[in-house]
Amino acid sequence: MPSKSAYLNLLSSLARKSSSRIVLLVLDGVGGLAKDGKTELEAARTPNLDSLARGASCGLSVPVLPGITPGSGPAHLALFGYDPLVFEISRGALEVYGVGKTLSDQQIGARGNFCKIDGDGVVRDRRAGRLRTEENARLCAHLNERIGEVDGVGVEFVPGKEHRFVLILTGKGLSSKLSDTDPHEEMKHYAECTASDPEGEMTARVVNSLMETVLDVLTGEKEATGIILRGFSGRPEIPTLGDLYHLRPAVIATYPMYKGIANIVGMDIIGCESTWGSQVTALEELFGRYDFFYVHYKLTDMAGEDGDFEKKVGLIEEADGAVDRILELKPDVFVVTGDHSTPASMKKHSWHPNPFMIKSIGARIDSADRFTEGECARGCLGVFEAKYGMGLMLAHAGKLDKFGA
Amino acid sequence: MPSKSAYLNLLSSLARKSSSRIVLLVLDGVGGLAKDGKTELEAARTPNLDSLARGASCGLSVPVLPGITPGSGPAHLALFGYDPLVFEISRGALEVYGVGKTLSDQQIGARGNFCKIDGDGVVRDRRAGRLRTEENARLCAHLNERIGEVDGVGVEFVPGKEHRFVLILTGKGLSSKLSDTDPHEEMKHYAECTASDPEGEMTARVVNSLMETVLDVLTGEKEATGIILRGFSGRPEIPTLGDLYHLRPAVIATYPMYKGIANIVGMDIIGCESTWGSQVTALEELFGRYDFFYVHYKLTDMAGEDGDFEKKVGLIEEADGAVDRILELKPDVFVVTGDHSTPASMKKHSWHPNPFMIKSIGARIDSADRFTEGECARGCLGVFEAKYGMGLMLAHAGKLDKFGA
Repeated sequence: MPSKSAYLNLLSSLARKSSSRIVLLVLDGVGGLAKDGKTELEAARTPNLDSLARGASCGLSVPVLPGITPGSGPAHLALFGYDPLVFEISRGALEVYGVGKTLSDQQIGARGNFCKIDGDGVVRDRRAGRLRTEENARLCAHLNERIGEVDGVGVEFVPGKEHRFVLILTGKGLSSKLSDTDPHEEMKHYAECTASDPEGEMTARVVNSLMETVLDVLTGEKEATGIILRGFSGRPEIPTLGDLYHLRPAVIATYPMYKGIANIVGMDIIGCESTWGSQVTALEELFGRYDFFYVHYKLTDMAGEDGDFEKKVGLIEEADGAVDRILELKPDVFVVTGDHSTPASMKKHSWHPNPFMIKSIGARIDSADRFTEGECARGCLGVFEAKYGMGLMLAHAGKLDKFGA
Repeated sequence: MPSKSAYLNLLSSLARKSSSRIVLLVLDGVGGLAKDGKTELEAARTPNLDSLARGASCGLSVPVLPGITPGSGPAHLALFGYDPLVFEISRGALEVYGVGKTLSDQQIGARGNFCKIDGDGVVRDRRAGRLRTEENARLCAHLNERIGEVDGVGVEFVPGKEHRFVLILTGKGLSSKLSDTDPHEEMKHYAECTASDPEGEMTARVVNSLMETVLDVLTGEKEATGIILRGFSGRPEIPTLGDLYHLRPAVIATYPMYKGIANIVGMDIIGCESTWGSQVTALEELFGRYDFFYVHYKLTDMAGEDGDFEKKVGLIEEADGAVDRILELKPDVFVVTGDHSTPASMKKHSWHPNPFMIKSIGARIDSADRFTEGECARGCLGVFEAKYGMGLMLAHAGKLDKFGA
């Protein structure tokens, strides 16, 4: 476990169990940029969020550091209080957890592509013509049925979208210190898996053997004739929110990756339908069972990535529509923020700070009049690194002891 | 000396002596939370502070880090520019300095309780029924008269409140690497003092011998028959403001602990009566003799801890009443701030940022219109960690050279 995060260590040393409840509502990519003088939040009609802002402490949270555009991994680690420069979830692990799987100490995972490999072992098409997702699922089932294990190591193929899948190996003494079999270029032979550390040699042999077995099993297939693997990863080494803060946390999200990240930091995954209303219903139903709820609203980010300003405005309004239901639960601490900004004008994640507000009996009320980028810039929390949000939530929830005499 | 505080090292490397004078007025626990829509500062009539704010740079200072509620030790270290996560004053040292004593290189101190110990050495009551303070003073005088020294090591008992006292040992080769004699539970034998390091063995023998001598001397006493000791501490290892910045600093405070902390960082303790007016008079009288004055106003914190909103408002107004006298001294830099917030509604220290203002010929004037949490949130200094306040004071006082070519 990394120990160089002084803030996290300090929080953890001061944390105490209490009965208070925290709700962290993340509107993915909600921050934006102005079109015709108004950002998406400014253009949206958000009576509930605005009323909340008028009774909350507001500010702007910088996802990582100024100018840094984060992926969803670092952005979410920061939301949960982890320094995203100290803690890292490898892309491999993120993919595994993202398809709804987890890794035990005796498992490693990797990202895979179905591809076209010719009789000489040369990769002709790294994505097998962007395989159809249904064909991917059929091939994974076929491989699972035909292979099952290699040299006593369990093998599981989990289908993803198009040509992508996740490979999970289960067995004693496995190591993820392995090189990719993906040559990362076409018209080259697939790469031999080698161990970067002696402890990985057995696993490398298993992987190389698996590569050949898959070629055999897929002989005669029309669309994909082989696989390439990359980003081998073991279970992420990260302390959980339970370990750190005695929290009993849960995630209410509709997309696998967010459930995955949350699960890695120790949250129980709450099942629910994919509508926003169903998410809030799940929160209502489970409210007594946990003391930290991470509620993730995905759609704002998707509209931002699509570059659809008006759609994003509408989806912000949809999110606003159920905020009063969350308030009625009377959480001791209610935070609304984003993980990063996704301005419709940029069609992608950006580095811009997130509007942030914290509603609690101990929150100083400031002059922010709406939940927008501009009003939050006038808030009493100032501009702060997103990782500090966890400290603010714990403090307002009465879950931190005093530091020093 | 801890060396991992890059900011302190930088400041120190740039610091230069000059004739300018800095006054740091700390209104203890002044920040608060709203009652009927106004915080204590907002409810108070503070013409002097408000006038000052209109001609100053304002901001909010975070005592340690977001969400962290500091004790007085870390909060004051930050006020004086020390990173409170790097530097620490042990509780034992704080108590020693807090009763108005200091520690030399040849002294160690510890916290002690008068207690009831029976004939078998079993601690029956760790606080001797919360001994009366007068009886405590009598017992300390009695022990000092009867003991004086043990094995050539000087022994001094300094009375505190109720059952609490401070023990100071003076001699060559003393070490504070010792275990407590406090068993930390009742109905257990008092603990033997052991050295956690070979260099502490001699001192441990002295302490164990002292424990027995005290039992002998207190034989036949009705209220307290023994002592228990904890938190042995040597002189805190912390560079002084003189060492770091060539300052000649002084403290004008009425409570021992604040004089103690200030003395640890090298300030001369200015004697004065306990009224606010007397403190300002002392500042006026000594103004030519020092170049850094830390003036500590305690009462706002006490009213906050009592949960008395109106009293705190009144005491803020009392503090305001003498601010014009400080201004008439024309300090080159005048800072008014808190060490931490003590909202009357919480009856204790909190994590909320402190209002901060700096008046100086080089200060940028911002739009803050009063010395309140909300107006300071609009100030040009933003929200910053309190340890940076020292850099701002030194800079505005012309006591820092340029960094780099």
